[in-house]
Amino acid sequence: MALSSWHDGHAKLAILDFVARVTLKGGAYFVPPADRIAVFDNDGTLWCEQPWQVQFFFGRDRLAALAQHDPSLAQRQPFKAYLENDQRTMHALGKKGLFEVSAAAHAGMTEAAFRKLARTWLITARHPSLGVPFPELYYRPQIELLAYLREHGFKTFIVSAGGIDLMRSFCEEIFGIPRERVIGSSLKTRFDIQSGLGELVKLAELNSFNDREEKVVNIGLHIGRRPILAFGNSDGDLAMLRYVRTGRAPSLALLLHHDDGAREFAYDRDFYLSPLNEALNRCVEYGLTLVSMKRDWRTVFGSAVPLTASGAAPARA
Amino acid sequence: MALSSWHDGHAKLAILDFVARVTLKGGAYFVPPADRIAVFDNDGTLWCEQPWQVQFFFGRDRLAALAQHDPSLAQRQPFKAYLENDQRTMHALGKKGLFEVSAAAHAGMTEAAFRKLARTWLITARHPSLGVPFPELYYRPQIELLAYLREHGFKTFIVSAGGIDLMRSFCEEIFGIPRERVIGSSLKTRFDIQSGLGELVKLAELNSFNDREEKVVNIGLHIGRRPILAFGNSDGDLAMLRYVRTGRAPSLALLLHHDDGAREFAYDRDFYLSPLNEALNRCVEYGLTLVSMKRDWRTVFGSAVPLTASGAAPARA
Repeated sequence: MALSSWHDGHAKLAILDFVARVTLKGGAYFVPPADRIAVFDNDGTLWCEQPWQVQFFFGRDRLAALAQHDPSLAQRQPFKAYLENDQRTMHALGKKGLFEVSAAAHAGMTEAAFRKLARTWLITARHPSLGVPFPELYYRPQIELLAYLREHGFKTFIVSAGGIDLMRSFCEEIFGIPRERVIGSSLKTRFDIQSGLGELVKLAELNSFNDREEKVVNIGLHIGRRPILAFGNSDGDLAMLRYVRTGRAPSLALLLHHDDGAREFAYDRDFYLSPLNEALNRCVEYGLTLVSMKRDWRTVFGSAVPLTASGAAPARA
Repeated sequence: MALSSWHDGHAKLAILDFVARVTLKGGAYFVPPADRIAVFDNDGTLWCEQPWQVQFFFGRDRLAALAQHDPSLAQRQPFKAYLENDQRTMHALGKKGLFEVSAAAHAGMTEAAFRKLARTWLITARHPSLGVPFPELYYRPQIELLAYLREHGFKTFIVSAGGIDLMRSFCEEIFGIPRERVIGSSLKTRFDIQSGLGELVKLAELNSFNDREEKVVNIGLHIGRRPILAFGNSDGDLAMLRYVRTGRAPSLALLLHHDDGAREFAYDRDFYLSPLNEALNRCVEYGLTLVSMKRDWRTVFGSAVPLTASGAAPARA
């Protein structure tokens, strides 16, 4: 049964109806497979982003490890605020500033070393209040939706403000999405050949902070085609949702509302990292389909996907 | 018969042997499908780049059209040199400078307008000496190789210094490569919503000139995985070829030598846009497999692929 973790409400109906229309050969709304591009935000859309987005826990643990070798780090801002969870200073840094602090902790690492670090962290770190590894906090209804779209000829992409390499270190096993279909924030890199070995090395300089209008810019760069379906959960996704809804093709833009304090978290306007404010206010005007976690999802979290340090586990999809 | 446009020489043998080894389940050199990434340069590797890369003819025709509305353009450098084919000044601009001049001619255009312009040009413009539309100047042996690799579970990508959007306007029909698997040089863009319509608009500023080490940087950004096969034809591809050859997995790096003045063109060290110099000198040291157009290819060009202005023709693969 398709989308069995979804209640039979208006959101599920909108999805089933949209997919049926764009895949009906000869129909007025038919969209050829090459144009069936679906883009999903990650944090708060595919998995839990409370109380902090996973990127920040990852960055903080890395900074803590670095501070053991260089104690002066814990005395210098902005690292001090990050390590001490000093909310006031962190608020002042903003989402982009926090990403840059987290990312700076990985400057100088090679691709291979970063990947090993990320995999090890993902299988050992635990969510502070829920007590499980972060990769288990994906939303089961979304895994079903991703698979359902792919079964109907869609290509599914992640378009997130999170770090591109951190997401790429688990996206294949958890979401069934290959690395080249992940778009995220990134640092600049440099290609070095030393002693005959060529490696990409991360630099301390930001390449792209993939949020708001930048999400659309990077969709253009990486995909080169306007998607026909987008799914987000904050104002950071609004530009992407509107890009999809203002094309010529049939389109569907979905907005997840975290209104389920019992099973997950309830938040919107006050979540300072990624508030849901303008998108919620102008949902009808912009033609967005609101998805209520409380009313539209039968279950929230899925069962654990075994991750191994080597990344050799079979992909989900 | 696989690779029927290839003679049974050492290059074809190296390809067949490599593909057999990495796809042999349980074998010592087996590579899982997710890691079977193949990257191809475009100009001079997948199609003809003489006497100029297609990008430059496209840019010059656009500048000529703009100069009809603004005659002062033809009096201003560097546009003047470009329009007058002033070789000395163009040499001084270099490959990157020439790309920037060509690209600047498209600043302010939306995605959709650019695509329409590119498609119209591709089906109407003719190669100056060969007299056929540029898309007919693809190499048949390479189309066979791309298809052969995909049949064996490879994902095939283009990684070119040419403009990303120009390549994306024909890559699906000619090469069977979808737009999201094309990496190229790009301009910065801006997402604008005007009168309720969201559009990506090209800016006059360079985002990335995808040549030499930058090819490797962009492979990291777009693919996130070290390819195991690369095919190039100039020093501009050398970093990418070495990136592939210095990984841990089995790898194959191929270098096309244009040594066939009778059927195509014979050139290497003196072609100033993309010379083949260091890569040729150090072919053995770097473990590159040299492909001779003259000796290894039974045929060079293929038959015409019909392109329509709308882009609705069926994809080749």
